[in-house]
Parts: sequence; structure tokens; C-alpha cells
Amino acid sequence: MSVQNGEQVTTTPRRRNQRATKLPGRQDWSSWPHYQAAAAGFRGYWYPVGYSSQFTGKPRQITLLGEKIVVIRDRGTVYALKDRCPHRGVPLSEGNQQFPGTISCPYHGWTFDLKTGNLAAAITDGPSSPICGKVTQPTYPAEERLGMVWIFVGDGEQPHPIDEQLPEELVGNAAVVGSRIQPREGNWRFACENGYDEGHAKYLHRTALWRLLKPMPVWNETRIIQRGRWIYRVQDKQYWTADFPGLGRWDNQAWFKLRPPKEVANIGNTISHRETNPVIAAQEFPGFASVSMPGVLRIVYPTFIHYEFYVPVDAGNHLYVGVMASFQRGWRALPFYAKYLGFVRWLFHGQFSGQDKWMVEVTDAPPEKLYRPDDSLLKWRKLAEDTCEERVERLAGQGITVALPEVD
Amino acid sequence: MSVQNGEQVTTTPRRRNQRATKLPGRQDWSSWPHYQAAAAGFRGYWYPVGYSSQFTGKPRQITLLGEKIVVIRDRGTVYALKDRCPHRGVPLSEGNQQFPGTISCPYHGWTFDLKTGNLAAAITDGPSSPICGKVTQPTYPAEERLGMVWIFVGDGEQPHPIDEQLPEELVGNAAVVGSRIQPREGNWRFACENGYDEGHAKYLHRTALWRLLKPMPVWNETRIIQRGRWIYRVQDKQYWTADFPGLGRWDNQAWFKLRPPKEVANIGNTISHRETNPVIAAQEFPGFASVSMPGVLRIVYPTFIHYEFYVPVDAGNHLYVGVMASFQRGWRALPFYAKYLGFVRWLFHGQFSGQDKWMVEVTDAPPEKLYRPDDSLLKWRKLAEDTCEERVERLAGQGITVALPEVD
Amino acid sequence: MSVQNGEQVTTTPRRRNQRATKLPGRQDWSSWPHYQAAAAGFRGYWYPVGYSSQFTGKPRQITLLGEKIVVIRDRGTVYALKDRCPHRGVPLSEGNQQFPGTISCPYHGWTFDLKTGNLAAAITDGPSSPICGKVTQPTYPAEERLGMVWIFVGDGEQPHPIDEQLPEELVGNAAVVGSRIQPREGNWRFACENGYDEGHAKYLHRTALWRLLKPMPVWNETRIIQRGRWIYRVQDKQYWTADFPGLGRWDNQAWFKLRPPKEVANIGNTISHRETNPVIAAQEFPGFASVSMPGVLRIVYPTFIHYEFYVPVDAGNHLYVGVMASFQRGWRALPFYAKYLGFVRWLFHGQFSGQDKWMVEVTDAPPEKLYRPDDSLLKWRKLAEDTCEERVERLAGQGITVALPEVD
Repeated sequence: MSVQNGEQVTTTPRRRNQRATKLPGRQDWSSWPHYQAAAAGFRGYWYPVGYSSQFTGKPRQITLLGEKIVVIRDRGTVYALKDRCPHRGVPLSEGNQQFPGTISCPYHGWTFDLKTGNLAAAITDGPSSPICGKVTQPTYPAEERLGMVWIFVGDGEQPHPIDEQLPEELVGNAAVVGSRIQPREGNWRFACENGYDEGHAKYLHRTALWRLLKPMPVWNETRIIQRGRWIYRVQDKQYWTADFPGLGRWDNQAWFKLRPPKEVANIGNTISHRETNPVIAAQEFPGFASVSMPGVLRIVYPTFIHYEFYVPVDAGNHLYVGVMASFQRGWRALPFYAKYLGFVRWLFHGQFSGQDKWMVEVTDAPPEKLYRPDDSLLKWRKLAEDTCEERVERLAGQGITVALPEVD
Repeated sequence: MSVQNGEQVTTTPRRRNQRATKLPGRQDWSSWPHYQAAAAGFRGYWYPVGYSSQFTGKPRQITLLGEKIVVIRDRGTVYALKDRCPHRGVPLSEGNQQFPGTISCPYHGWTFDLKTGNLAAAITDGPSSPICGKVTQPTYPAEERLGMVWIFVGDGEQPHPIDEQLPEELVGNAAVVGSRIQPREGNWRFACENGYDEGHAKYLHRTALWRLLKPMPVWNETRIIQRGRWIYRVQDKQYWTADFPGLGRWDNQAWFKLRPPKEVANIGNTISHRETNPVIAAQEFPGFASVSMPGVLRIVYPTFIHYEFYVPVDAGNHLYVGVMASFQRGWRALPFYAKYLGFVRWLFHGQFSGQDKWMVEVTDAPPEKLYRPDDSLLKWRKLAEDTCEERVERLAGQGITVALPEVD
Repeated sequence: MSVQNGEQVTTTPRRRNQRATKLPGRQDWSSWPHYQAAAAGFRGYWYPVGYSSQFTGKPRQITLLGEKIVVIRDRGTVYALKDRCPHRGVPLSEGNQQFPGTISCPYHGWTFDLKTGNLAAAITDGPSSPICGKVTQPTYPAEERLGMVWIFVGDGEQPHPIDEQLPEELVGNAAVVGSRIQPREGNWRFACENGYDEGHAKYLHRTALWRLLKPMPVWNETRIIQRGRWIYRVQDKQYWTADFPGLGRWDNQAWFKLRPPKEVANIGNTISHRETNPVIAAQEFPGFASVSMPGVLRIVYPTFIHYEFYVPVDAGNHLYVGVMASFQRGWRALPFYAKYLGFVRWLFHGQFSGQDKWMVEVTDAPPEKLYRPDDSLLKWRKLAEDTCEERVERLAGQGITVALPEVD
């Protein structure tokens, strides 16, 4: 209840509602047509879909790039097939195994060979069933790496070896890994752009416990450079405090935080100073953060590397796969285990990454209006666009025509 | 956590993703245009909508063939009207009775005669309201049979007597019935096709407790024959075990199960052998399972008959109405009651039928690829198609034009 | 279970299903094109969006006329801006204040001036960011009246003063108000039409506790007259009982209810009889109930006035804002407080208004078939149509073109 005494004055200045005015900025992503069309992901890549331990002899349905896939383990090996029986459309993942090396639909016992997808038997039509040999179920290449199952989704081409796609240092080097897999809402591109985005960390994550003791710069001068299939962010200068005209000073410092470092924190110098990790030191990492197709983020810390794989489930959902790897051997790996389980898992893969999750859920672009630090986004989109275009041309040379899906 | 040691070998053979290949099979149901258009059911039939006891003086909304209908009992008789007041679109089922023989809308008291649908009064406009006599609410014929309320949904034609549509043996014979009514997800056609499907029972229901002691054949040789408005499945031969080349032997036998019968189990011979039931024996049942329009399944057991009525609620939902009938009289019916309540209701109408419910929910066709046992489906579709075509022609002769609804 | 004895007779007369017949009546609202297009509300008005106490320094998102708006209080004054950061589409309401007089997006710290909407800083791009001065966020005029925040949604025009839109007697007179704000389902037009509807109260509310002791007429003779921007319902005659031919007598009387008054209850005579309230008596209220744009209902009781503001949230939701005002001063207002808190709030703003809420949720028009008492609706629609047409012409004179939204 309130008393209205008639003496109220107008306290709000008249402001003009500019609803009708179209703001400048990108109204769509049509300058990157392949990227724009990739709402459900880029085809022609391997994607992690879950821990190896999650895939057993009991078939399990996953969704990857909008496709329903049944995954089953048979005598140690993982197989993946389209999860729709061609007979009446029932998911094979609702069925089980009647014979080794096969999977049977629960409805009428149509039984498919796991390796070839061939219909090996239609049980309820007897051994002489004329349908056998006339039906083949689509299959997907599957592999296991880093304790996870990986599936290749393409357009009928021969898949490239998965080891050509994994970060180089993870192939052929002993690594201790800790990982976290979490289904998340939001398009995978927002997740990937968020991960590589130069601008957001210093502001969004200023309150993260993971950064409790470390100050963050206000803004940076950054270059993006390409080395092979990765693009790296190289910091040329970091500004730890700033005075905004008409507003005041803003920084991320506090009495309980460490002092800002005197040198710019690119990974090259930090590693060379410490030399704690021969595997990492042997690689060229010109910058702290790098990204590669089909949406893999790599953050190189002095003693370990953090990876994020943004796996497209469908246009509105993705799988966040965070992997932390240490390249120590034997008992030297023990401190990493302790650090991961007692600390990193909760602060980094938990609350810090949860802030990213929040933003990915609420991002809604295009339209968008980009600013200087978004050069990192632009370079990632260009990398994706160019790489996808090359693939389409390469497949065309093999007689496989790939049409871009329509944009909503 | 897992240790990655770089020595992992490729365990999965390269397989070709055949996603782009369009499999052979029916991509739609356009060879049966009436059937294809009947997603929400066939018009021109009586449908059971609930137990008689569920319909009282308190109006109740049901949905039948996608139409909202209010059902109310007035002095013993059940009436059905379109459940939308023409004034402002409020459901009459939210209202109640202000005068005997009528129903009133809750909003402004528009009061409709239950028999004719005529607007008898608009209470809030007084007795002289000029709207009276100018508005008539559509009504639906309603009957009661087998302890249930049945409603006719047509296109303005005079409905045929309900007794011409009920299974013949249920008209004019004393029957003891046990029934189960359950709203289920999935299109009514999948439910009906599942019920009559020759192929699925032997595989899907192999684990049903109802079949615990009885073996099921692996496959059959079957003919579909028509007698009047019913089509019957006649088993010519049954195979109780089978060897599938390259896979192994498969059967449904076990040490605790009965031995397979020596003769083929068509109902004719089983009934004539037992002669326990004069009513059933007097009918011609050339096969165990038969089906008729608009989606009625009949399974004749030696001592009782089981019926399933698949009632279209809308394109995505149906009402499962299972009825078990015994034709014994007086005290001879007691064992049936005991058997039904203690056994049949739980195992047959419960777990066994629940397996069908599961399949109806996950079936997703067309596209579909049919096999030899699907001859039963094809014959049912043809029966439905021909019967519906005859009706449309008959109505055209009466000056009623029925347009097929568009297919999604 | 039921026993079927074959002797059941047809108890339901054959009735003709008239589904195919299209009933007479309005199939759409195309005779009032502006009204028909105003599913999400009329633009060019002030709307209450919540209690003043609900808007603090913590930004809060509201939806008004389908637009997402962030509302924040800064040093006492309430501001409203479009709730979508132009950078990447993140809601500003998820952010907070980094500098007085501004609001910052949580993602990258884009910081907008609350008064002008100008981008004052992009924190993570430093003080020299070239984007500053190039981006302006749309703002909405905001005011506070009656203990609530009001926001103007227009098309870029200069808003009229809010005091020109409030009911006249609420401006410049001391008033004690009790209010209730409730989000409700259903289109705002159904809520407004329900509020002003002459026909429904006597039937729908016959069971309301608020009316427990007072009889309601069965029907009235009513005229709608316009005075300025309000249209009033004037009762010429009230009928307290009625005999409906063929059905019987119907009235709202009971032994425990008061006797119907002898004079017709228009507000003019009741107020002049009592003269308890000089402010009300000084106004011209030719009828009990009146309505004005953009959907404001006023019910004048002898000692207080009740208002309902139907605030469009979007096409399927509205905000019910009920306000009860007494114009007594000082200690004379105490009985109103006591009456409101102990009685009116629960019976009137609660159960009585809940019946209206129920009808607004289930109303589904057009199509509709109107009757004599709906003259009140027709006059309201005409008032809305004419007023909106005048505004569109006025704006056209200012060079602002307003296109009607398309109707679903």
C-alpha cells in the first residue's frame, strides 16, 4: 500500500524509444556460409561422445550432429550404427544382442551385423527370409582414445585417422588425464567462441574462485597467429588497470591477490623459465590459448594442458568435454592427480567453467556488434570456414557432393 | 581417469558411413490414401470412450478423432455435444446443469438442449433473448454397450446401428466381460497394426510372463483370408526352432516350458476339440486372430475371446480398450471372473500388453521396409482402404462430400 | 465388470451430427483491424509493470508487449532499457552496475549510460576502445505512480505525460490504495473484455463469496454511453427473477441474501444518496462500470473505486493489476485499510477475481457468436479501434509510420 499525494514530480527525463532504429552490426553470419550452416556441427570429424566405461554390451543411444546413433561394445570393440531399424523405425538401442557380433531390434528380431551393418537375420521370418542380403544399416567409424569413445560423422568418405585430429602432443606421449563430460544447453559454436574469446575472461571470470589469488588484466593487446591447423592468441601487452573517462578507475586487483607479473604471460617464456615439462617444452606454443577444428580449445599452463572439446549434439545442445593432461611419468604424476582431484576439478572444471556455461546459454547472436577483442572470434570463424570449404572441394573431387543445410 | 600410453592400436575396422544412400522401402503410405489420411481416425464409426460409470451428471470432456466432446448423463441417458460454446469458445464441460435436459456454459449461462443441441435459453439475456432459436450446438450420437459409453463420429450422415459394428458374438449373447481402458501415446494405426502384426508376438513377447510356460514358434507360414468384414490369420505351418546360417540356433524353448503342440494352433481345431463353449463353437473363426474396421482386434482362445479396440484420440494418442469376454452363463462364469481378476488382468492386460504399448510409442513409420510376415499389415491396410473408399462413395450418393484431410 | 445380456435397448434418439455446418457468427475480428492486430497490446501507452519496491539496484527483466526490458533503480530513479546487449545478445539484466548511472553486461563489461543508452565503456577493450560512441541501446520512459513502476512502450514518439492517461480522480487527489499484481495466462483482450462484459457477472459470479449476501439480477437493460475517453454502462432496468419458457424459473435469490434494491443501481444515485465521498461525488460517473484505453476498468462503489489494468505481457499472457482506492484523508482512511486487508483483498481480489481468471484462460475466440449484452464488448472494441486509428494518423503526421503486425 502507498499513499498518493498528488505532489509527485517527474523524475525521469524523457528518453526516446529507439526501437524502430536498426543498429549497425552483423545481422547474420552469411559472410561465413559454411559456419552459418554448421548449427548442428561440422561433418567429417571425430567427436568424443562419452567415457569408454559408459559403453558396454547393453546398447546405448547418443545424439551427435543431430543424428541418433546406437553404440554397443562387442567382445571389447565399440561399434556405432544408425539408431533406427529400417523395418518400422524402432530404435535398435531398445533391443539387445541375440548372437555375438550383432544387434537385434526388439520388435521383430531384425538382426544386424555390427561391422558391416548387413541384415544377418530376420528371426521371425526364419532362416530362409528373402529380406536378408537386401538391407544394410548405416554404420559409423568408432575409436577409443583418452578413456573416451570417439565417433566419426561424415558424408560417406573414408575417415582420416583419429590421431591426425587429436592435439599432436596427446599422440605418442604418455599422459595422465582428468576429464569431465557434461551435456550443456546452447549451440556448440557459442561454446567454442566463448572458449577462445579474448575479451570475456578478464570480466566474466573476475569473480571465479579459480582466479581468487591471481589478478586479471583489464585489457590486452593481442595478435592471432596461425601455426599449422591451430590459431594462437599472442599477448603483446597487458593493462592491469584503466581509467575510463567520465566513469572512473577499474581493475581486478585486491589486497589479497598476487601482484601482476612484470612480463607478458605468453606461454613460451613461462615454460622456458621453468623447464619443468620436457614434452610441453618440445612443442611450439606461441600463445597461451589456441583453437583448431572442429572446435577444440587448448590452454597451455606451465605444468599441464587443458583442452575443451565442444561436441555438437544438435542445434540447441552440445557436450562439454574438458580434459586436463599432465605429461609427467610414473610417480611424478602423483601431484597432478592430487591437484586435479582436490582442487582443479572443483574450481576450474566446476565453478569457473560454469560461468562459461551460463553465458553460452544466454548468448543470442546474430545479430551482433563485434568489438576489437573479437578479432579472436573472427579468426576462428575464418579458420573454420576455410577448412570446411577445403573439405567440400576435396569431397567433390571424390564424387561426393555435400549440400549445406538450410539456415533457420 | 585413464593413462594414455600412446601404444593404442586401431581396433575398429574402417566402415563406410552410408548415410547418404536412400534405402529401398516405402517412403510414404500414398498407395493407401485414405489410410494415410486417417492419422486422427476413420470417421463414420462408433468408438468406446470410457466406462459407463465415468459419465455422470457432471459434464466431462473427452477427445475423439481430434474433436473435443462434452459427455453428460441426464436422467440415465448419456448425451454428447461439441465441447465449445459458440458464444465465446468456453468449454461446456466447465459448466453444469441449470435445468433438466440441458447443459449451461459457465460464463454467461447459455443453455443447450441435450437432445437437439438447440440453444434453449441465454440466461443472462432474459427469457426474451433474441438469440434463442438461432443457435444449435452440434451433437454426437451416444450409446452404452459392454459397460462402456460409445460415441459416433461421422460427417453428418445417419449413423448405422452400433450393434452392426460390434463383433457379432457380442450381440444377442450373454457375455461376462472384463475390460481395461488406458490412454496411450502413439498413433492408433501403429497400435492396430501391432495388434494384428503376425511377426512381432513370437519375438517381442518371448519374455512376457503370460507366455512363461508356453513356447512360441520362431516363425510361421501364414495366410490372411477374409470372411465378411473380418480378415483372419490362418497358420499353415509353425516352426519351433531355427538355425540361422553363420549365427546359430534360435528358439523360444526352455526346460520349464511346455512342449510345442503337434498340430498347428488355428482356433477351429482347438475349439472343435474342446467344445466347451457353444457360442464360440457356433461361429466361424477360421483363425486365431482377426481384425475389422475401424480398428478392432479379436483373439479367440478356446474358452474366452479377447478384443482390443484402438480408439483414435488424436494423431499422437489413442485409447487402448481391452475387453475379455466369456460366454458362460450363471455360475459357470465364476471361474472366468476368478481367472480374470487373479491372473489375466495383470499378466495379459498388464505386462504383455505393456510390451505392445512400448513398441507403439517408439514405432516411427513411414519410411518403412516391410518383410514377408507383414502381409498381415498389408491386408489390414487394404481392408481399411477399401472400406473407407466405399463409405466415401456411399456418402457422395447422399450428397455428403468428404474431403481427405491433408497429410503432415 | 458388467454383464451384457443382449436385451439392451437403444435409449438415445438419433441425432444429427452437424459438424460440417458452419454456424453463423463472427469468424474473425477483421471489422476491427487494429484491435485484431493488438494481440500483444496497444503501443503508445504507459503500463504498470510491478511494485516500486520490486525495482532496486539489482537489474530485473520484465516482458511488456512482447519486448524484453531491463529495469534498474539508480540513486532513486528507475530506468528501463532494451534487455539485450547488442554485442552478443546477452540480457543486461544478468549483469550489474560497475559505475553509478550505468549498467554493465556480464559477459564483456559493455557499459551503458542509463539515461541515454549510450555505450559509455567497453571495459575489456580499455579506455581507448573505438566502439564507444558508436552504439546506443534503446531506452524506455519510466515513471512511478500509485506505488508502481510504469513504462511507456511506443514507436519512437514523445510519450504523453502519464498523468493524462491515469484515471482523472487519481491525479491531484490524495488516495489510499490497495493493490494486487498477478501474472495470468490468456490474452489481455479477453481479460479486458471480461472485465467490462455486462453479461457474465450475474451468472459466473453468482457463487462468489464476495456476493454471498447480495442478490444479483438475472438480466438487465443496459446502455453504453461515452464521456470523454471513458465509456460507461448505464442500467435502465434490472430483472431479479425470470421464467424461461419450457425450462422454469431462474434467479439468484436465497433466504439468506439481502432483498434486491428497489431502484436501479447506477452509481450516480447511490453516491448522491450517501454523499460520503466528496472527491467521488464531484466527478461525473454516469454508470457503475467504465473502461478506457489501453485497457483500464473502473468500478465505482459508493465508498471506494476499484480499477483493473490489463497489462499485455505477450500474446498469451497478461499482468492483472487490481487497485482499490479510497479518497478519505488521514484517520478516516483507517476503516478502508481494515476492510481491504481483512476482507476485500481475499474475497474480491482473490476468489471473485479468480473466477474471471478462469474464464480468461478458457475463452477461445474468434469465432464467436455475440448476443445482446455483448453490446458492451462491441462498444469497447470500437473505442479501442477508433483511438488506435487516431494515434496512427497522428504519428503519420510526425513522419512515424506504424505498420500493423500480422495476425496469426
